[in-house]
Amino acid sequence: MKNTKIFYNKKNALRDPILIVGLPGIGTVGSLVGEHLRNELKAKKFATLYSPHFLHQAIMLKNGGVRLVSNRFYVFENKKTGRSILILVGDMQSGSPEGQYEINDKVVRFFKSLGGRTIYTIGGYNIGNQYVHHPRVFGVATDKETRLQLSKHGIIFGKAAGAIWGSAGLIIAFSKRYKMHGACIMGETGMLEVDANAAKAVLEVLKGVLNLDVNLDNIDKIKNETEKLLKELEGAAAGNTDPSQASGGNGGKQHLSYIR
Amino acid sequence: MKNTKIFYNKKNALRDPILIVGLPGIGTVGSLVGEHLRNELKAKKFATLYSPHFLHQAIMLKNGGVRLVSNRFYVFENKKTGRSILILVGDMQSGSPEGQYEINDKVVRFFKSLGGRTIYTIGGYNIGNQYVHHPRVFGVATDKETRLQLSKHGIIFGKAAGAIWGSAGLIIAFSKRYKMHGACIMGETGMLEVDANAAKAVLEVLKGVLNLDVNLDNIDKIKNETEKLLKELEGAAAGNTDPSQASGGNGGKQHLSYIR
Amino acid sequence: MKNTKIFYNKKNALRDPILIVGLPGIGTVGSLVGEHLRNELKAKKFATLYSPHFLHQAIMLKNGGVRLVSNRFYVFENKKTGRSILILVGDMQSGSPEGQYEINDKVVRFFKSLGGRTIYTIGGYNIGNQYVHHPRVFGVATDKETRLQLSKHGIIFGKAAGAIWGSAGLIIAFSKRYKMHGACIMGETGMLEVDANAAKAVLEVLKGVLNLDVNLDNIDKIKNETEKLLKELEGAAAGNTDPSQASGGNGGKQHLSYIR
Amino acid sequence: MKNTKIFYNKKNALRDPILIVGLPGIGTVGSLVGEHLRNELKAKKFATLYSPHFLHQAIMLKNGGVRLVSNRFYVFENKKTGRSILILVGDMQSGSPEGQYEINDKVVRFFKSLGGRTIYTIGGYNIGNQYVHHPRVFGVATDKETRLQLSKHGIIFGKAAGAIWGSAGLIIAFSKRYKMHGACIMGETGMLEVDANAAKAVLEVLKGVLNLDVNLDNIDKIKNETEKLLKELEGAAAGNTDPSQASGGNGGKQHLSYIR
Repeated sequence: MKNTKIFYNKKNALRDPILIVGLPGIGTVGSLVGEHLRNELKAKKFATLYSPHFLHQAIMLKNGGVRLVSNRFYVFENKKTGRSILILVGDMQSGSPEGQYEINDKVVRFFKSLGGRTIYTIGGYNIGNQYVHHPRVFGVATDKETRLQLSKHGIIFGKAAGAIWGSAGLIIAFSKRYKMHGACIMGETGMLEVDANAAKAVLEVLKGVLNLDVNLDNIDKIKNETEKLLKELEGAAAGNTDPSQASGGNGGKQHLSYIR
Repeated sequence: MKNTKIFYNKKNALRDPILIVGLPGIGTVGSLVGEHLRNELKAKKFATLYSPHFLHQAIMLKNGGVRLVSNRFYVFENKKTGRSILILVGDMQSGSPEGQYEINDKVVRFFKSLGGRTIYTIGGYNIGNQYVHHPRVFGVATDKETRLQLSKHGIIFGKAAGAIWGSAGLIIAFSKRYKMHGACIMGETGMLEVDANAAKAVLEVLKGVLNLDVNLDNIDKIKNETEKLLKELEGAAAGNTDPSQASGGNGGKQHLSYIR
Repeated sequence: MKNTKIFYNKKNALRDPILIVGLPGIGTVGSLVGEHLRNELKAKKFATLYSPHFLHQAIMLKNGGVRLVSNRFYVFENKKTGRSILILVGDMQSGSPEGQYEINDKVVRFFKSLGGRTIYTIGGYNIGNQYVHHPRVFGVATDKETRLQLSKHGIIFGKAAGAIWGSAGLIIAFSKRYKMHGACIMGETGMLEVDANAAKAVLEVLKGVLNLDVNLDNIDKIKNETEKLLKELEGAAAGNTDPSQASGGNGGKQHLSYIR
Repeated sequence: MKNTKIFYNKKNALRDPILIVGLPGIGTVGSLVGEHLRNELKAKKFATLYSPHFLHQAIMLKNGGVRLVSNRFYVFENKKTGRSILILVGDMQSGSPEGQYEINDKVVRFFKSLGGRTIYTIGGYNIGNQYVHHPRVFGVATDKETRLQLSKHGIIFGKAAGAIWGSAGLIIAFSKRYKMHGACIMGETGMLEVDANAAKAVLEVLKGVLNLDVNLDNIDKIKNETEKLLKELEGAAAGNTDPSQASGGNGGKQHLSYIR
């Protein structure tokens, strides 16, 4: 097995599909969004991607079964728009440049072969060591038309800077080359390894972009649990530290970073 | 030499062969089981696998000779069942994902080309920093039929979770793809680099699974030596440390970890 | 995407082109020189090189767009000599030997296919932990003729020793194999991550070599700002440290290294 | 440039050639032996090996020229035996398993294509942190005949154990596969990064094996300088340390390790 391969689980005909890429990354925002959509929309498994550039791991299943690590495409038919939505989620991204270029190029070409013209990748936009209570949603996109359209739903363009690592960036860069419309949609995040608040902000925007009904209760639950935990830790930090330091507001933050 | 290659040492006809994979890994359980079977069954060398994804090492031999690092297939004819048993042992596994995918895919396709339909990989299941006196044997398998059959011999399914690294996991994942029956059989282990007790537990189960007579005296000897050493270290630890700590049972454990 | 690729942005006919390679490296001298020439000469984008051996990153643009990391060729027609000048600049070099050999071989063959016969790569020559006020410009070249010609412009041959890492070295080594004239031109540098003074020294020499009018005000500005900052830090260091140490001249230097 | 390549510098006809491989490695024994033979025998450059698995470096030459890192074959006609001797020396070995397998396989096949049947690789055999005053010369070989023949010249077989890393081991392992006679000849060494004494021991044995006249004055000079330095350091260590420690002989050794 020398190359990345995609196998169909169930080959449905798709209608002008949109691809949403929700893979592991900064603040786990991509995975949270992708898995939430998959669950809430009861999307069906469509295809599975395996790669020799993922880690050499097999995952043990609850039923005593086993499967290779993978990325997986799920499909949902959006009756409100008549378009198919493909959701790409997975266990991991490749750790090497060569793996990333191969896999992401494969994903974009596979989606193009299905007649796809629109790709949104989801990620986190890291602003440093703080909890973001009211996360903004930033975007970059392949073309002006896409930027204008997404702006209407509250996605902020031209304010994010720097590099996007991995699939969230490469898939959009490749979609441009293959003459598709692509955007990377990023929830503002900081400190947290798993930031449900940033994911919720992206989901709220996506509902509009995709014209989708999605219940957000489950992501809200994770968000609330995280925030409760953060408050407890802030309280503990304030109690444990010298008042002169606590008043500076830094004592608590240092403790919070242990959550990572 | 750009690809993994398998050379026959002696090309026997095999009868409905079963492959046992006993390679280096957690607690050295795979290697202990594989090498024990090879020795006790006086299995004959059947084929040798070389790979540019192993380390760039040659092994010096006692007779002044030298050989490339390798994995090796040995064959034994089980007269009680009329089936051939192939045992795969070796110096190492590949350290890279690309190497692991290539080698393990090669192993499974090679075994399929020999008419093989059943593969058991052997590994350790790490439960953390403690010596496991009565190790359980956990399993994951490609299909329900295999799980049912192995359960009868005391292998526990559905209780192990997480990822299996390397050949023990990938070979089973690949055997599923090639429509073979595969299971990874794992001896419960902790603390030790070389855990003969976990290996013994697996061997006892394997005797039943394979319907094999195998003498376990040699593995018992390693197990007893290890346990004697552990007791001495525990005694030394109890003597050296503050009684209030020793009674907590932790003083000994810290010392034991030096065995690793 | 398994291989390094070069796409034309605008395929001009070139006249006996000279290639200047100004990529990231020691003291950022290559990039400073390349980007300065590109800006001052208002060179036009000619071709873009992408590689799976660069990092897996996409760059966010000010206008809300996005692009893959790349190296880029710009072209300028030098009316004084009638020769085209190609300038290669970029976000990064590959981090692996395999990537470096592939990319640099590709660059040289691409340039040869354009009728090119002369390549100058730009780099820094590190002489250790000190600021170089009057940097010399060292060179190595493929052939005696090139060495003689460049010597006339003040480039010093036969005094630099050691290894040249990456594109600055490999492109010249490959140009020799493809029977082209090549030289690596290196500005003497030390301590600094970004050494505009070393870049200025190279630019002054290059003006002569290429028979080019280039305004150096912008590079001078960076140089002056750096030197002002260095002086402030030296002053601070002298004030903060024990006089017996400060007189040894080392206190200041240690502080300066923070600029890196 | 995706593959290792060998270019002829001067394609001589060879007479039943013997290949001596003297590349960088433990104690620099291989390089010292290879370069000493090349210099003393005034061997002529025969072929050059380049590889994308070496480091991405170009070497600056004293004359202002530049060359890619490489391994180089030199040829000498041994009039006493009528056989050609090829000596392989070089700047480095590859750092990756994949590179090592490709390069060493290429070397052996290249040598076989020249009609070669006998290969001796040179290395150091590390016995730990001590200076070896009277180094033994150990060997491993592909076949009994070679072992017997080399034993007559004082090379010790069957006493060395463990793994041989890199070219010294792989070339011999590959020569076995290609049905050639091969041996790895190792000088006993310890502590030193550059051990001329171990190299001298190998050279003395090689003179007999190859039936060669080689002057050893130059290697003797390096050996004597090293030993003088070691004595000075031992003296310094004895003076600086507590007498009770110095008498234990360890104080000096610790200091000597700085030479590395």
